[in-house]
Amino acid sequence: MAPRGHSADDVARTALRILDDHGLPDLTMRRLATALEVQPSALYWHFPNKQTLLAELSDRIVARMASGAATDLRTEARALRDALLTYRDGAEVVSSTLALGLGAPLATDRLTAAVVADGFDAETAGRVATTVLHYVLGFAWHEQQRLQYDSVGVRGEGAGAALRGANGAGAADAGAAGLASDDFAFGLDLIIAGLHARRRV
Amino acid sequence: MAPRGHSADDVARTALRILDDHGLPDLTMRRLATALEVQPSALYWHFPNKQTLLAELSDRIVARMASGAATDLRTEARALRDALLTYRDGAEVVSSTLALGLGAPLATDRLTAAVVADGFDAETAGRVATTVLHYVLGFAWHEQQRLQYDSVGVRGEGAGAALRGANGAGAADAGAAGLASDDFAFGLDLIIAGLHARRRV
Repeated sequence: MAPRGHSADDVARTALRILDDHGLPDLTMRRLATALEVQPSALYWHFPNKQTLLAELSDRIVARMASGAATDLRTEARALRDALLTYRDGAEVVSSTLALGLGAPLATDRLTAAVVADGFDAETAGRVATTVLHYVLGFAWHEQQRLQYDSVGVRGEGAGAALRGANGAGAADAGAAGLASDDFAFGLDLIIAGLHARRRV
Repeated sequence: MAPRGHSADDVARTALRILDDHGLPDLTMRRLATALEVQPSALYWHFPNKQTLLAELSDRIVARMASGAATDLRTEARALRDALLTYRDGAEVVSSTLALGLGAPLATDRLTAAVVADGFDAETAGRVATTVLHYVLGFAWHEQQRLQYDSVGVRGEGAGAALRGANGAGAADAGAAGLASDDFAFGLDLIIAGLHARRRV
């Protein structure tokens, strides 16, 4: 019960576990303190407010993209989507942090570097990175909302959703995931084709 | 206090007002019933659950896009963004409804029709509509998260945000809105250029 018995890393890891198990609405400083068996005030020594905690979680989620030099835009965008989907409500955590002006520097840097490596100037690359970031966040957000509704059994045409059995829901999920990956790739290809068309102007 | 003293239209209009004044997390069936001075059970006569209410609100938000024949993809996508931004948390209401499998038929239909009118087949048009829908939802969601954080004064680099005066924040908002419109147009142009590049293949 020592107020400083946990490192910032312990706090962030426990917060990620609560996020993944219960979702963002249930990730409160109070719940986090209870899970760590400390007073809420002990958390503020590491994270002065919830926004700084979310920014740390956002950095950890995005860090799953990769390390090393950025590769091509398609690979980086897919890696970002995969990273967002790794944790429940991952898209919302990262988008919230961006909206707070706290940034997702790794994601922006890697996407920008991939476009620069493809031979475009830094300004164009930055704007393309912003487009891809919004596209990936919007897409992953939608996928995670679907998962959330599926988990509480409310998705589908009205009350019919509640009738689906566990196996049926599983098969539908697998089908939906494949369809989502196809749709995601289609949109990404469109953006990349648009980028390459700029060269011809 | 008659339990059926309000039409479905009254209920939906009051729900939109609560949404716009207080945001989606505060739009509960209980709060809606209190605002209409009825018992919560009276609402279920019109909307059997919150999902069907949100679907109705989503339809009303998207209906602001336009009526009449669909025009070009750029115009339709801009109209969708404007419609989503008309009501607080509009992007979240529409995305939730889509994720529930209840659809946003008007938005999908208008975006698809715009691509078909540009000379593409229906399958391609449907996939392009899905891409644009995700892009616009992701973008508008981000804009509305920023507005939300600005309104509670937590946005900016850590604690510094609280120091901004009302005039400074207003100017920053106007600048941010202009920047957002530029970024939105850039990404949309990229998607449209990608679509047109497909013709050349």
